[in-house]
Amino acid sequence: MRSQAVPQNEEGLICEHFRRAAEIVGRRWNPQILRVLLAGPTRYGEIRAAIPGISDHLLSERLKSLEAEGVVRREVTPETPVRIEYSLTEKGADLAGAIGALAEWAERWAAEATPARERSPA
Amino acid sequence: MRSQAVPQNEEGLICEHFRRAAEIVGRRWNPQILRVLLAGPTRYGEIRAAIPGISDHLLSERLKSLEAEGVVRREVTPETPVRIEYSLTEKGADLAGAIGALAEWAERWAAEATPARERSPA
Repeated sequence: MRSQAVPQNEEGLICEHFRRAAEIVGRRWNPQILRVLLAGPTRYGEIRAAIPGISDHLLSERLKSLEAEGVVRREVTPETPVRIEYSLTEKGADLAGAIGALAEWAERWAAEATPARERSPA
Repeated sequence: MRSQAVPQNEEGLICEHFRRAAEIVGRRWNPQILRVLLAGPTRYGEIRAAIPGISDHLLSERLKSLEAEGVVRREVTPETPVRIEYSLTEKGADLAGAIGALAEWAERWAAEATPARERSPA
């Protein structure tokens, strides 16, 4: 995914990260979760309410795995009751461009019957 | 991945296509194959030569599956010997934006030790 002058090692790292990025954004529910978090720090219950159809089990599993990827940060504020918020790390927020590009592609090609001239150019 | 006024049905189609796009570009070897084809119609042997490490088995499997997805077109020209070329469909060429965005993310975050200010903004 890159030009010549890149050392083998770095090239491999980039390929690995490329695949990981595609996996993260391609995993069911993740794009919706990331979209909610792009608006800023959000409590668990608010994320759940914003995504109809997601189960508690799946949402907490996804949040944990996004945290492990360094994409989501979990912050605990010691109040009564304790406040737990999720937000995007810098790395996570930086996925917005790729998500946007995939979403645009999907919107253009979801209805393939649409005449070609009505589609936006690449 | 879209705003309110979209009918449920279309929303589902778009989500399905979003996942499919992420799957296509996230699958091992596919980004390299698509990058080669972005340059124009290419013979099988040329694609193989351009991607060190790919096996015949994997390359032909990937080309078949990309063809089934409507992303790659296989064209046979009746010459002697017969000429078989692969090229991107309009839908396939349109993935370039998403691949580029994922590649940029991967380049920025592959080496996480890089100081934050050296990274491009989202």
